[in-house]
Amino acid sequence: MSQKITAHRAPGTRDFLPEEMALRNHIRSEIESSFRLFGFQPLETPALERLDVLTGKYGEEADRLIFKILKRGDELEASKASGELADLGLRYDLTVPLARVVAMNRGALQFPFKRYQIQPVWRAERQQKGRYREFFQCDADIVGVSSASADAEIIALSDHILQRLRIPRYRIHVNHRLMLQAIAAAAKIPGERFLEMCAVIDKMDKIGMDGVLLELQNKRFERGSIERLMGMLHLSGDPDEILERVAQDVNRMPEGATAVNELRRLFDDVQAMGVPLERLSCTLHLARGLDYYTGPIFETLIEEPRIGSITGGGRYDRLIGVFCGEDIPATGTSIGIERIFDVVRELNLADAVTEVSPRVLVAVFSEETRGEAMKITAEIRRAGISAEVFFESGKKLGRQFAYADKKRIPIVIVAGPDEIRSGSVTIKNLKTSRQQTIARADLIMTLSQEI
Amino acid sequence: MSQKITAHRAPGTRDFLPEEMALRNHIRSEIESSFRLFGFQPLETPALERLDVLTGKYGEEADRLIFKILKRGDELEASKASGELADLGLRYDLTVPLARVVAMNRGALQFPFKRYQIQPVWRAERQQKGRYREFFQCDADIVGVSSASADAEIIALSDHILQRLRIPRYRIHVNHRLMLQAIAAAAKIPGERFLEMCAVIDKMDKIGMDGVLLELQNKRFERGSIERLMGMLHLSGDPDEILERVAQDVNRMPEGATAVNELRRLFDDVQAMGVPLERLSCTLHLARGLDYYTGPIFETLIEEPRIGSITGGGRYDRLIGVFCGEDIPATGTSIGIERIFDVVRELNLADAVTEVSPRVLVAVFSEETRGEAMKITAEIRRAGISAEVFFESGKKLGRQFAYADKKRIPIVIVAGPDEIRSGSVTIKNLKTSRQQTIARADLIMTLSQEI
Repeated sequence: MSQKITAHRAPGTRDFLPEEMALRNHIRSEIESSFRLFGFQPLETPALERLDVLTGKYGEEADRLIFKILKRGDELEASKASGELADLGLRYDLTVPLARVVAMNRGALQFPFKRYQIQPVWRAERQQKGRYREFFQCDADIVGVSSASADAEIIALSDHILQRLRIPRYRIHVNHRLMLQAIAAAAKIPGERFLEMCAVIDKMDKIGMDGVLLELQNKRFERGSIERLMGMLHLSGDPDEILERVAQDVNRMPEGATAVNELRRLFDDVQAMGVPLERLSCTLHLARGLDYYTGPIFETLIEEPRIGSITGGGRYDRLIGVFCGEDIPATGTSIGIERIFDVVRELNLADAVTEVSPRVLVAVFSEETRGEAMKITAEIRRAGISAEVFFESGKKLGRQFAYADKKRIPIVIVAGPDEIRSGSVTIKNLKTSRQQTIARADLIMTLSQEI
Repeated sequence: MSQKITAHRAPGTRDFLPEEMALRNHIRSEIESSFRLFGFQPLETPALERLDVLTGKYGEEADRLIFKILKRGDELEASKASGELADLGLRYDLTVPLARVVAMNRGALQFPFKRYQIQPVWRAERQQKGRYREFFQCDADIVGVSSASADAEIIALSDHILQRLRIPRYRIHVNHRLMLQAIAAAAKIPGERFLEMCAVIDKMDKIGMDGVLLELQNKRFERGSIERLMGMLHLSGDPDEILERVAQDVNRMPEGATAVNELRRLFDDVQAMGVPLERLSCTLHLARGLDYYTGPIFETLIEEPRIGSITGGGRYDRLIGVFCGEDIPATGTSIGIERIFDVVRELNLADAVTEVSPRVLVAVFSEETRGEAMKITAEIRRAGISAEVFFESGKKLGRQFAYADKKRIPIVIVAGPDEIRSGSVTIKNLKTSRQQTIARADLIMTLSQEI
C-alpha cells in the first residue's frame, strides 16, 4: 500500500453518487411496482456465465463483445498452448440467462412463468460518448405461452411503465419475424441471406431508407429484390390498414398468413388492455438485431429526445430449446432503463426524488454533552425519523448549522448544558428559521410536526 | 443456435428464483431503511475496476482471488508475449471502490460522507459447499471523521439492523489495530512480522487458542513472544474490565495508550446510542484479515447457527490516501447479507414475505370473451391490484382454477357470455371458497374488500 495510484475508473464505466442513486432507485421501484401489478415475479442470475452458454446466441458481432474471464492458476498455464485462455464470460443480456434458468428448472416452474429481472450487463463496445460497457438491463418475459396474447401483455406492460413514468410522445412499433421472412420471400431474397438482410434493415431508424438502400446494394443483393423489398418495408402506421395492404403480397405464403393473423390478435389484445391506437404502429421495417427472435417483435421510440429505442423485445420460441432440447415458447421485452434515466433527468419528470439527506442533525454542544446528543439521536431514529449526529465535538455550533444547511438537513437539534439541566432541548427548523426550546419529553411529538 | 448445450451455471454461482428473491428483497429493504434512518446515502460503483486499483490493497492471498478480465482484440495479441493478459478485474469488495470514488470526488463530496452500498463482489475461491464465487456485500462507511464516535455509530448501526431483522443471540466484538501492535511490541514480536501475526490470530474462532499456538510455533515465532502474546490475547468480555487489565501492559507505549483511549470512547458512545453491554465484547484476539485496517476493528458473531461473523469492519485511515496522496480518515462495516439471508431462512424469522404471486387471476371463458377478460384485467391493475389474465383461450375453467390454486393466486374472476350480457362478473375466493356474482360496476369495490 505504499505506492500512490492515480484513481481512475475502468473505461466505459460509471459511479453513481447519492443524488443520481436516488433518481435511479425511484425509477427502478416504479418499474418494479408495474411488473408486480402485471403478475411478474423477480429473478436474479449470476454475472458469471460459462462461455458456451453465452456464445452463439446473439450473432457474430455480439459474440465479439462478450467480456471473457481469464482462467486461473494451473488451468491458465495449461491453456496457454491452446489459446483457450477464458472459461467464463460476463452476462451479455438477461434473455440467455433466463433461457438457461428455465431449461434447468423446467420441472419445478409453474408455466406461464412471468419473470422480471433488473441487473447489469457488460459489453466490450468501442468507447464512445454515452455508450457504456456496464449498464443495467430491465427485462420482463413470459415463458410457456405461444399465444400472441402474451406478446400483447408485454406491450401493454411497456406502455404502462412509460405512462407511469410520464414519458411523453412515444410510439410502440410492432412487426413479426415471419412477416419479414414472407416479405423477403416475396422479394426473392435467398433464405440464407435473411439474417443479413434483417441486420441491414434494422438500421433504418439510424441511417434512413436511403442508407438501407445503399447498404443493400453494397452487399450485392439483387436490384429487383431490393426494389420489391423497399416497396413493402416503407409501410408503417395504423395496424389495420398496414396489415390489410401487406396481406395481398404475403398471405399466400404460410409465414405471411401466420404473421398477419398473429399481429391482428396482438393489436386487438393490446387495445383491449387499454393502450390507445395512437401509441401503436405496425412498422414493417422493424427487424431487431438479435438472431433468436421467431415471432412478433416490438420496439418503443420517443420523439424527443431522439435517443433510439427505449424498449425492445420479441418472441423467441426456440432459444430455450437450445439448452434443453425441448422448445418452450417465450416472449419478452427489455425496458431501456438507462435511457429512461436519461430522459427522466433531461425532461425533469421526477423533480422531488433526489432528497437523500437525513431529516435531522443533532448538534454536539461540547465534549461533555456528547453522550446526551447520541442518546437523543438514538431516540429520534427509534421513532423512525432519519437523523445524523455531528461527530467532531469541539466544533462551534455555527459550523454545525452551516454543515446542516449545506447538506440540506432541514432540522437541527441542540442540547447544551443548560437544556440538559432543565430537561429541555432546542429545535431549529432551517427552512422556516423558527427556533423553539421545548421539554425533552415532547421532542418526538414536536419533531413529527416539523417534518 | 443449432447445437444443443447442456444448461449449467458457472461453478460457485447461484440463480435466485422468485421465492428466494422475495426473501432477499425483503431483507435488503429492511437494511436499506436502517441505513437511511442513520443518515447514510446510497452509492453504486462498477463491477469492472482497473487491476492496479484492485491489487495490493487486501493482502497477497486475496490478490490471487481476484477474477481478471481477458484483454480484447489487438491488445490481447500484443500482450501474449509479455503475459499481461488482463487489464481489468471484478470488484473484490466494496471498500476499495469507495476509496477510489472518494479520491476522485473529494472536491465535490460533503464530509462526513456516510454512504451505503449493496452490490455483488467476486472471488475466485476454491469450490466448497456454502462458499460462493459471486455474492452480495452490504457496506456502510463514514468517510472524513477520525473520531471513534464514528466507529461507535457504525457498530450501533450494525446492532440496529440485526435487532430489526430479529437475529437472536449475537455479540459484537471490538478490538483496535494499535492495541494489537502494542501487544505485539509488548511480546517482542518484530515489527515486520506484525501482519503475519495478525493473519494467524485472526483464525482464533476457527482453529481455537491451541490452533493459533501451534501455527505461531510452526511459523517460528519466539517461544517467549508466543507465551506473552497468548497471555494477553485470551482476554475478552466486559470492555471496562478488559481495558483496565490490558492497560497495565500496553499503556506505556503510545499505540497502546491511544488504543485504550479510543476504545473507551467507542464503548461509551455505542452504549449512549442504545446498544446494551451484554451484546458488546472487548476481544483482544480479534484481528480481521485485511491489511488496510488502522484503528478500531469489529465483528459480530452469532451463537446459533455457528456460521462465522455476520458483520465485520474497522477503521482504515490510510487507504484513500493511496489513491489521492492525501489521507482521509474512514471507518465502516460489511453487513454479511448472504449469511443473514441464511440465518433468517434457517430460523424462519420472516415467514410471510415469500408471497410473490399476483392477487387475482382473470379467467378466459372462451375465445369470444377474451377481449372482455383483458379489459377487466386492465381495470383491476389500474386500481393498483396485481392481476394476471389466463393466456390460452379454449382451456376449461376447471384447469384455470387449478392453475390459480397451484400458483397460490387467491382470487379468480370469470366473465362468461351470460355475465357479459347481464353486465355482471363472478368472483371466487379460493381461500374461503366463496363465490359471488356481482354487478360489473362493483368489481373494484368488491375486490378491495376480498383482498
